[in-house]
Amino acid sequence: MALIIQKFGGTSVGDADRIRAVSDYVARTRRKGDQVVVVVSAMGKTTDDLIRLSKEVSKTHPGRELDMLLTAGERISMALMCMALADQGVPSVSFTGSQAGIITDTDHTKAKILEIRPDRLFEALSEGKVPVVAGFQGVSTEKDVTTLGRGGSDTTAVALAAALGADRCEIYTDVSGVFTADPRVVPNAHKISKISFEEMLEIAASGGRVLALRSVEFARNFHVPLHVRSSFTWEPGTIVQEEDETMEQAVVSAISHDITEVKVTITGVPDKPGIAARVFREIANRNINVDMIVQNTSHEGATDISFTVPQSDMASSLEITRSIALDIGAGESYADSGIGRVSLIGAGMKSHPGITATMFETLALHGINIEMISTSPIRISCVVRQEAVEDAVRALHDAFEL
Amino acid sequence: MALIIQKFGGTSVGDADRIRAVSDYVARTRRKGDQVVVVVSAMGKTTDDLIRLSKEVSKTHPGRELDMLLTAGERISMALMCMALADQGVPSVSFTGSQAGIITDTDHTKAKILEIRPDRLFEALSEGKVPVVAGFQGVSTEKDVTTLGRGGSDTTAVALAAALGADRCEIYTDVSGVFTADPRVVPNAHKISKISFEEMLEIAASGGRVLALRSVEFARNFHVPLHVRSSFTWEPGTIVQEEDETMEQAVVSAISHDITEVKVTITGVPDKPGIAARVFREIANRNINVDMIVQNTSHEGATDISFTVPQSDMASSLEITRSIALDIGAGESYADSGIGRVSLIGAGMKSHPGITATMFETLALHGINIEMISTSPIRISCVVRQEAVEDAVRALHDAFEL
Repeated sequence: MALIIQKFGGTSVGDADRIRAVSDYVARTRRKGDQVVVVVSAMGKTTDDLIRLSKEVSKTHPGRELDMLLTAGERISMALMCMALADQGVPSVSFTGSQAGIITDTDHTKAKILEIRPDRLFEALSEGKVPVVAGFQGVSTEKDVTTLGRGGSDTTAVALAAALGADRCEIYTDVSGVFTADPRVVPNAHKISKISFEEMLEIAASGGRVLALRSVEFARNFHVPLHVRSSFTWEPGTIVQEEDETMEQAVVSAISHDITEVKVTITGVPDKPGIAARVFREIANRNINVDMIVQNTSHEGATDISFTVPQSDMASSLEITRSIALDIGAGESYADSGIGRVSLIGAGMKSHPGITATMFETLALHGINIEMISTSPIRISCVVRQEAVEDAVRALHDAFEL
Repeated sequence: MALIIQKFGGTSVGDADRIRAVSDYVARTRRKGDQVVVVVSAMGKTTDDLIRLSKEVSKTHPGRELDMLLTAGERISMALMCMALADQGVPSVSFTGSQAGIITDTDHTKAKILEIRPDRLFEALSEGKVPVVAGFQGVSTEKDVTTLGRGGSDTTAVALAAALGADRCEIYTDVSGVFTADPRVVPNAHKISKISFEEMLEIAASGGRVLALRSVEFARNFHVPLHVRSSFTWEPGTIVQEEDETMEQAVVSAISHDITEVKVTITGVPDKPGIAARVFREIANRNINVDMIVQNTSHEGATDISFTVPQSDMASSLEITRSIALDIGAGESYADSGIGRVSLIGAGMKSHPGITATMFETLALHGINIEMISTSPIRISCVVRQEAVEDAVRALHDAFEL
C-alpha cells in the first residue's frame, strides 16, 4: 500500500464537472489499495476574481488581509471536493493549511514553511479517510493565516510529501507534462518522460510555467520525486527526480522562453568597489528578484549596469535606481519592456563546450541580435528583442534536433 | 469612550460600494472617540451561490464540509472590510470565528456557542485597531469549523457584545427597523422606536424577518440591548431592550405574518395518555421545530392532531407521522401547504382580555375563517388560508389603530 500525494491545480478543479471527475479519479486510486492525500488549489479564476474585488474595494491591501481573502479560494474547492468524494462513497475530510499543521513565517503573501505538524492528517489516514488539504496556505507563528506565494499549492504538495514520507507526489495540471519547448510556439515539441531536478529548476527559473521554481527547489531539497501530469487525459507525464543513469543524457533537454521581464539600465555608474553591491542590496531589500545582470566595460571611470526584473517590479526598481543615482553621482535610469529571454537547458551541457557557440550561431543565422547573456553549468540564456523570441525558440529547437 | 458592536448583514456589504460606505461609517464612529468591533456577514448572495455550487458538485453534503464551504463567505467580506478601513486610515484586523475565540459545540450547520475567549479582540482593541469579526461561524471543541445556523451573524454580534461588555450592539440591515406590520403589505405601517425583548421574540417567532429568534433570545438572556437600523439611510431604528416604563405600553405593538409553514394532520389518533407525547418526541428527535399544535375534541376514543412545521420539514414530518400511525393504529396523515399565520403581538395584551375577541371579530367581519389558534401572554396567532393573510394583516392593523 503506497501513500500518494495528488495535487490538483486551478483548472483541474475549475468547475463542478471537473471536481467530480477528479473525485472519481481519487476514488479509483483508493480502490487500487493506495492511501491518498489530496491537495487542491482554488477553482479556476477564483483567485483572480478575489483580487479584482479587492481592487474595487480599496487601494490599500495589507498582506495579512490579502491572505485572509485569498485563502477563501482553496476553502471552497476543498469542501466541494470532500462533498464529491462523499458522493463516490469515499470518506474524506478537508483541512485548511492551519488544520493541516503547515506552520510558516509571518511574511504575508509569500510566507515560507517552517515546519509541518501533520498529526491530524495521520489521524484521518488511520481512520481510512482521504485528507483533502488546502494548497497555498498555512498559519504563521503569530497564528495568522498566510499564503505561500506563486506556485504555493505545488509547494504544499511537496512539503506534505516530505513530511508524511509519501511514496509519490503527483502534480496534476492542464498540460500533459514538461515539453522540450512551449508547444504553442514549437508545434513538434515533445513531452520529456524524465528530467532531473536541476534541469527542472533551470526551466522553472527561465520561463517554464508547468512547475513553480520554489516547489522544485523544495522537492530537490527533500528528495521528493514529482510526477507532473494531466488531469484531463490522465496519461503518464514527466517524472522529475534526482539525476540518474537511466535518464537519456541529452545535451540539450529543453528550450524555455520568458517575455515577462523588463531590462532596467542605470548609466554612468562610477566604477568603484561597493557601488554595484549597494544597488543590488537596495533592490533585494525590496524583495525584488533580479534575474540577469550585465555590467559594461568601464569607460572613463564609469560604466552602465543593466539587469532584468519582473514587469511588476519595474516601477519600484526605477525608483530605487533613480534615488541611488543621485547619491552616487550616476546618470539616468530607464527601463526597456521590449525584451524577451530564450534559454537552452540540459544536464549534458556541462561536458559539451560547443553548445554556446552553436546557440549564438543559430541566432545570428536568423538575424537575431543578442543583448544580454547569462549562463549556468546547465543553462545558457540570451536576452533578445521580444518580437524575435518565438523565432529564436523554433530555430534552436531545430538546431539542437529536439 | 463607549465600546460599540456594529454588525452588518449581507445586503449591507453586498458589493464594493457598500463595503466602502460601511467602512466610511465605521471610520466616522471611531472619530467620535468610540471603540468599534465590526461583525460582518457574507456579501449579498455569496452564501446562496456557494450552496448552489455544492448542489452542482454533489448530492452529499456532510455538515462539516458544508460549514467549511460557507465560512469562505465571511472570510471574503471581512478581509475586504479591513482593506476598505485601511483606505480610510483606520487600522483594523480581521478575525475568523475561530480566531475571535468563538467556541461552539460540534453540531455542524447549527452549532451553539459554548464559550467566547476574546483575548485577541481585546489585544487588537488595546492596540487601537478595529477588530472585524466573521459572523455566523465558530470553531468546535473538536477544532473543526462550525456555523451557527440561520441568523448566525446576529448571534455572533450579540454574543460578542456580552463577552466584551460592550455598551451597545447595533445591527445594521436593509430595513430601517422593526415595523408595526410588513410595510409591503401595510403601506402605512410605521417604525417602532422601542420594543421589549419579549415582544421582539414573539415577532421573530411568528414570521418577522428583521432579527432571527435565536439572536433575540441571546440578547435577552445576556441583557444586551440591540439597535436595529439601516445601513442605507443610517437613520435611528428600533431599540430592543428590557421592558421599562419609558416604553409606550401599546396594547398591540405589531402584527406579523408568516406563509412559510405547512399544517400536518394525523387522523384517528387513539385518545390515550402518551400517544401525543410519542409523536412530538419523534418529531423533536429529528430536530424539527413544531410551532402550533391543535388537538380536536375526542370522538369515539379517537382524535385528530394538527401541527405546523416549516415547509422544508414537511416530508420528514409526514414520514414520521405515517410510521407512527402504523404502530399506534391511527389513520392517515396529510399536509396542507395552503396556510398562513397572522399574529398580534403586544406586551399590553397581558392586561387587556378583550384583544382576542376584537381579533376574531375583525377576521370574521372580513370573511376570514380561522383554522387554528395559539396564544401566549403577549401574542395571539391564527392560522388562516394563505390567500387571506394579507387582507387579515391590513384589517387588524386598522382595527387596532397602529
